[in-house]
Amino acid sequence: MTDPALTAMRFELQRPPRRALAGRNVSQMHYARKGIITPEMEFVAIRENMRIEQYIESVRQSGPDGAKLAARILRQHPGQSFGASIPKKITPEFVRDEIARGRAIIPANINHPEIEPMAIGRNFLVKINANIGNSALGSSINEEVEKMTWAIRWGGDTVMDLSTGKHIHETREWIIRNSPVPIGTVPIYQALEKVDGKAEELTWEIFRDTLIEQAEQGVDYFTIHAGVRLPFIPMTADRMTGIVSRGGSIMAKWCLAHHEESFLYTHFEDICDIMKAYDVSFSLGDGLRPGSGYDANDEAQFAELKTLGELTKVAWKHDVQVMIEGPGHVPMHLIKENMDLQLEHCDEAPFYTLGPLTTDIAPGYDHITSGIGAALIGWYGTAMLCYVTPKEHLGLPNKKDVKDGIITYKIAAHAADLAKGHPGSAIRDNALSKARFEFRWDDQFNLGLDPDTAKEFHDETLPKDSMKVAHFCSMCGPHFCSMKITQDVREYAQKQGLSADKALHQGMQEKSIEFMKKGAELYHKT
Amino acid sequence: MTDPALTAMRFELQRPPRRALAGRNVSQMHYARKGIITPEMEFVAIRENMRIEQYIESVRQSGPDGAKLAARILRQHPGQSFGASIPKKITPEFVRDEIARGRAIIPANINHPEIEPMAIGRNFLVKINANIGNSALGSSINEEVEKMTWAIRWGGDTVMDLSTGKHIHETREWIIRNSPVPIGTVPIYQALEKVDGKAEELTWEIFRDTLIEQAEQGVDYFTIHAGVRLPFIPMTADRMTGIVSRGGSIMAKWCLAHHEESFLYTHFEDICDIMKAYDVSFSLGDGLRPGSGYDANDEAQFAELKTLGELTKVAWKHDVQVMIEGPGHVPMHLIKENMDLQLEHCDEAPFYTLGPLTTDIAPGYDHITSGIGAALIGWYGTAMLCYVTPKEHLGLPNKKDVKDGIITYKIAAHAADLAKGHPGSAIRDNALSKARFEFRWDDQFNLGLDPDTAKEFHDETLPKDSMKVAHFCSMCGPHFCSMKITQDVREYAQKQGLSADKALHQGMQEKSIEFMKKGAELYHKT
Repeated sequence: MTDPALTAMRFELQRPPRRALAGRNVSQMHYARKGIITPEMEFVAIRENMRIEQYIESVRQSGPDGAKLAARILRQHPGQSFGASIPKKITPEFVRDEIARGRAIIPANINHPEIEPMAIGRNFLVKINANIGNSALGSSINEEVEKMTWAIRWGGDTVMDLSTGKHIHETREWIIRNSPVPIGTVPIYQALEKVDGKAEELTWEIFRDTLIEQAEQGVDYFTIHAGVRLPFIPMTADRMTGIVSRGGSIMAKWCLAHHEESFLYTHFEDICDIMKAYDVSFSLGDGLRPGSGYDANDEAQFAELKTLGELTKVAWKHDVQVMIEGPGHVPMHLIKENMDLQLEHCDEAPFYTLGPLTTDIAPGYDHITSGIGAALIGWYGTAMLCYVTPKEHLGLPNKKDVKDGIITYKIAAHAADLAKGHPGSAIRDNALSKARFEFRWDDQFNLGLDPDTAKEFHDETLPKDSMKVAHFCSMCGPHFCSMKITQDVREYAQKQGLSADKALHQGMQEKSIEFMKKGAELYHKT
Repeated sequence: MTDPALTAMRFELQRPPRRALAGRNVSQMHYARKGIITPEMEFVAIRENMRIEQYIESVRQSGPDGAKLAARILRQHPGQSFGASIPKKITPEFVRDEIARGRAIIPANINHPEIEPMAIGRNFLVKINANIGNSALGSSINEEVEKMTWAIRWGGDTVMDLSTGKHIHETREWIIRNSPVPIGTVPIYQALEKVDGKAEELTWEIFRDTLIEQAEQGVDYFTIHAGVRLPFIPMTADRMTGIVSRGGSIMAKWCLAHHEESFLYTHFEDICDIMKAYDVSFSLGDGLRPGSGYDANDEAQFAELKTLGELTKVAWKHDVQVMIEGPGHVPMHLIKENMDLQLEHCDEAPFYTLGPLTTDIAPGYDHITSGIGAALIGWYGTAMLCYVTPKEHLGLPNKKDVKDGIITYKIAAHAADLAKGHPGSAIRDNALSKARFEFRWDDQFNLGLDPDTAKEFHDETLPKDSMKVAHFCSMCGPHFCSMKITQDVREYAQKQGLSADKALHQGMQEKSIEFMKKGAELYHKT
């Protein structure tokens, strides 16, 4: 028996599902609004600061120059935060206040004790989500659990189980019981399986029971497409790609078949009652997101966004945590409007976007078309980025695709953190750059997002161990390594009796003043 | 004997190198300023418009709905061009005026008749460059020529031969004779080989002879690091990663060894005399570009940029075409400053940037860290993007790396074209999205940047030919394909006797008005 199996079984044996007493509320938002700092909030505060404090302390104690070195590695350019208010240090009080305000969420179902809590909000580090889950056409439970641990290994902050095939319940149980990160689902998928795929046969009761079933298993957030309202569906008629959200299209089909408003919308307060009994967070789905650049920022999309804003306020009335899902396919220059309108309509509830893909012309590379958009919207203020794999539009991602998607999105999220000026976000860049300049190859690999690949690429041409201290790589060879030449120059200056750091500065400054005095300006004054 | 070999030999036998008569000037800029439209300018005008006109014409004639379809496929969002003035149609006169103004260049050495001319300028489509070339440690001439044709196959607009190992001259000859795209080089690399890698032994004479040698072979643009001036070198002393440009570090070493101003700077007008005799364009190198986010936008970098602006005006005095090289490693929020200062100091001469890399923490994935920056700076106005491969910082790229770099940069350039609003740039997106929505799988693959990979990914799970017309893929399976559901909905509406396009619009609009009248607003007015 494998370890995950053991864990799952043990858990099954020990616990009954937990639920708030009737009329009570166990959401993080509820506690926050009462002024209570939960253990989850404390954990989040520690976690957001961890890499700064631990690493810097170790550098400080690394030798006589430790303090100087630490200061150098801490230095970073001030960011441009577009109105975010990121503190220098995340305290438990700050976490509580952000949760109470609705500007951040901690998805943490009380039935998911395996979780290590994390926060999603624009004043925290930008997070990424990885989607896994089998479809009717492929992959087993085992494979999906393996994809999940794999996704977390490479840096996934949350995982969504989008399974639609057989064994949805079992797959989800295995995933939750083995996951230290929040698990999200789209409950309508399972509800649809219960009516054999016939959207028109869905009912509020079937959906409600599915919500409770999943809440009791420990799902941390639900994507609910309650913004796909009947009056918005005709707005999609002239689109290039219609409705591309699975949940959105299911609900559209239901609405049209019944000529009725969506039961997700009419029963929204009932849903809130379920959410608060387990502390499941809303991820209000964007069922009308654009599926092509052509459809970006259209009437249907923004009508739904406005509705999601209304529903946010309803959820907050119940102290239920909310984040808002966003597009999709959007050319670069239209991305900011998405962020601005989301902040406005949804009163700063965290934004959680899929990409967006900045062009439609690269099937097979949509991790990249969307990584560009993700970095941009992350910078503008999106709190969590939902990854896109190279297989998007083409098939179910395998392990390699999951990893490519994750690494791309870690890059996008980190680029956004740097641009926003999250304190300490440049430390890893600085440390890696320093290692690079000093030809500490192993350190360079290990400080990167994917040490395996970096080492493998380097070793393709220079596999010997001795090459891990060589002052060049095969890209330029020994004579043309600019960093080697720069170091030679610095050493040369040092030999002239100047201190290492000041060598060029002092020695050359004199020379250049001397030179300037000679009137060597050829064409213009600098 | 292979075809390329045949071509090369034939050419060798037929031609002596061409050169302008003493005191004459054969540059495109020279002709442009005299009001002359050269064949190269005409070709460029046709080329920039080609994909619009040809494609749209074929759509128009495709059937009774052709005109309507063409209009739909032509539709795109207005762009945000940051001061670029992109015309609706590129005319030969417009090309001439842009060249005369120095806002664009056509790199086209008179000794490179194999070329199909192209323009680089911010009012034209964004271009990409691929670097190839062997180092002392690897790869043969054959491999480099193959990399070149491979790079062009996937969409490289120019190619730089950065060879530094043995057989520099021969490698270059083979590359130029087989290249329909402009070839750029960094002549200081070959000059350095001539002095056995001892930078301090370089002289103006050796460099000059190298320029002439390469100009007579037909190199279309030279990277010349004339902005690495002696007084700027001390400014790099406190950097995290010093000087990371190979050419820049060679010149820095020379300057320090001699305590003299760079001969590239002091002999700049002599260089101009050579350039104009063959119409070689300048690519003024950014030898002091930052090699880490830490060093971005610092004193050294901008001092050099200002100098490149001065040199631009000197070159323009000689009617020599100029583009300006740019960084490097720059966090997202500091990218725009680079573009703005370049436009200001260099009077709108085309910018040609390497990336920039938006974070340093992903060795093995620097095509992605830099693709993000490239898309951004391309949107802001950069005319050509120099690709970065996954092997950057780690080793010499192989064919797969070259392709990954090219596709990533095609994505970045195209995302920038869309954001700037280049007329017709959305056609391919629209056509591909339409094919996607209509489940024309082969069309979807073939309209993409890399049909082979798209097809391969799709076929991993659904290899059968019948699946090329299936209304789903393995990502979601048949029941959950949102686009299939949307089509079902549209068909359903159509069966009710409504016309295809207006079905949802008319039918559902009525329903929703009816619904609204019933007062179904639950919480707020929309």
